[in-house]
Amino acid sequence: MDYYSKTTTKLIAELGHLPGIGQKSAQRLAFHILHMPEEQVRELSSAILDARTSARFCRECCTLTDEDICPICASDKRDHKTIMVVEDTRDLVAYEKTGQYNGVYHVLQGAINPMQGINPTDIRLKELMIRLQGDVDEVILATNSTLEGEATAMYISKLLKDTGIRVTRIASGVPVGGDLEYVDEVTLLKALENRTEL
Amino acid sequence: MDYYSKTTTKLIAELGHLPGIGQKSAQRLAFHILHMPEEQVRELSSAILDARTSARFCRECCTLTDEDICPICASDKRDHKTIMVVEDTRDLVAYEKTGQYNGVYHVLQGAINPMQGINPTDIRLKELMIRLQGDVDEVILATNSTLEGEATAMYISKLLKDTGIRVTRIASGVPVGGDLEYVDEVTLLKALENRTEL
Repeated sequence: MDYYSKTTTKLIAELGHLPGIGQKSAQRLAFHILHMPEEQVRELSSAILDARTSARFCRECCTLTDEDICPICASDKRDHKTIMVVEDTRDLVAYEKTGQYNGVYHVLQGAINPMQGINPTDIRLKELMIRLQGDVDEVILATNSTLEGEATAMYISKLLKDTGIRVTRIASGVPVGGDLEYVDEVTLLKALENRTEL
Repeated sequence: MDYYSKTTTKLIAELGHLPGIGQKSAQRLAFHILHMPEEQVRELSSAILDARTSARFCRECCTLTDEDICPICASDKRDHKTIMVVEDTRDLVAYEKTGQYNGVYHVLQGAINPMQGINPTDIRLKELMIRLQGDVDEVILATNSTLEGEATAMYISKLLKDTGIRVTRIASGVPVGGDLEYVDEVTLLKALENRTEL
């Protein structure tokens, strides 16, 4: 038996499909929405649909955008000869927030993960290779420091071996402000291995 | 500067207004939505709006429903002379799930909370008093076991003092299966106070 009205039951089910939202949270959110002013609910409902329907991948870097070409790729203030390769748009945003990177990006929209059936052809690697036929000085591999991210970085660096393009990988190590006590062993060893002269 | 496209920024902002969803979660949810099949996103978007636009309060018990009168109030299998008073529709559902309660409900849509400016006139008390002019044997006060819930129960029990209607309050005590060690002092004292003969 459904304890809630049909439309509420449907709403709880739809919210419950979202990642990290369990049955209880879905109920809580649904009731919050039912008590919100209708105008606000319209805003939320159309924001969801608008974002999705206008979402496309940038023709250059494959980031999620709502334009044919994203603002970063379209900008002539950026250094288009330096391409930072990231897994997804959120990673791009993380680097943009530093305000210090002036190159452009390439968003793979994933990482190689054979266990989950994600092969090199399933991510935006072909698009990267096409871009690299242009005038590129450096490719910075900024995939995540996970098994998949490392494998993807390794794979790309091998692909680019004889192209003459400089290929770099962002450093792994102890997070700034991090207490050694709370840092995992692999990171500690990585930080030791990548130590620099002072 | 906005790091995301306009529609994505708007979506993140809208999701971030929901309770328990911070900036990071909103970003994560937004990107999940951007990667969902468009058909699913349409379902989610319209589930939100449909639930809200069809939401109304039951003419009898004031629960949230999408009909003029909710299925429980409309049922002739329920005992309409016993009314359980709860704070909101989720509390009603909690008791419905037990499958053992056969009376009807009255949903106050809140609890008295003078600190937050919620006075007796701000909850569905007037509607309860009107119902009680009919043929009612018992009012079970099942507001939450919080300061506000207790105050509301107390307030209602005083209102009904001389009506001849039986007024009861659900028991407070140690949760079934609860380990005494983890139960708070107030609950322990309440459980002692309300002990029953064996």
